[in-house]
Amino acid sequence: MILEIADIRIHTGQNAAFDEAITRGLRTVVSGAHGFRTASVHHCMETPERYVLQIQWDTLEDHTVGFRQSEAFTQWRGIVGPFFAGPPLVEHFQVLLDGV
Amino acid sequence: MILEIADIRIHTGQNAAFDEAITRGLRTVVSGAHGFRTASVHHCMETPERYVLQIQWDTLEDHTVGFRQSEAFTQWRGIVGPFFAGPPLVEHFQVLLDGV
Repeated sequence: MILEIADIRIHTGQNAAFDEAITRGLRTVVSGAHGFRTASVHHCMETPERYVLQIQWDTLEDHTVGFRQSEAFTQWRGIVGPFFAGPPLVEHFQVLLDGV
Repeated sequence: MILEIADIRIHTGQNAAFDEAITRGLRTVVSGAHGFRTASVHHCMETPERYVLQIQWDTLEDHTVGFRQSEAFTQWRGIVGPFFAGPPLVEHFQVLLDGV
């Protein structure tokens, strides 16, 4: 399993609409992708425009090739992309420690 | 519950020692703090100097007041601080969506 972490900044004042859009996009588009396991979204308390999206994929290529080169990626970006204030920082992670 | 997310960059080439130190620091120091629930650490594949530490606390103040103003915080920073290439970006988050 690898973890995608996306650090997202949205335009100011669009939180309610973005909350609905990212929830809908994950449930209706991303969750159907090959290798998708689960996702979470967290909203920053200090910086209201900031969100952290985390998606577990079976393999790195399930995200970088299978999903990103699919029509589903275009649909997903159509739903959430208009809210982005800039390109999200997206990188992939391996677990060092999970549960202390 | 609130989630602390710390985005950490360490000095190049110190991964093995840092992996040991952050694991030990979480297990022996942070996990005993009032309001601590659980923690995870993920290591970035694209940027080997980057780690994301996530800690669940009962309340914001359990971290920002109870832990940060305690002797335990000094101990914790003594264990992991020497590896940091700069101040970590630490903010707090509320869950919007957990599990899709």
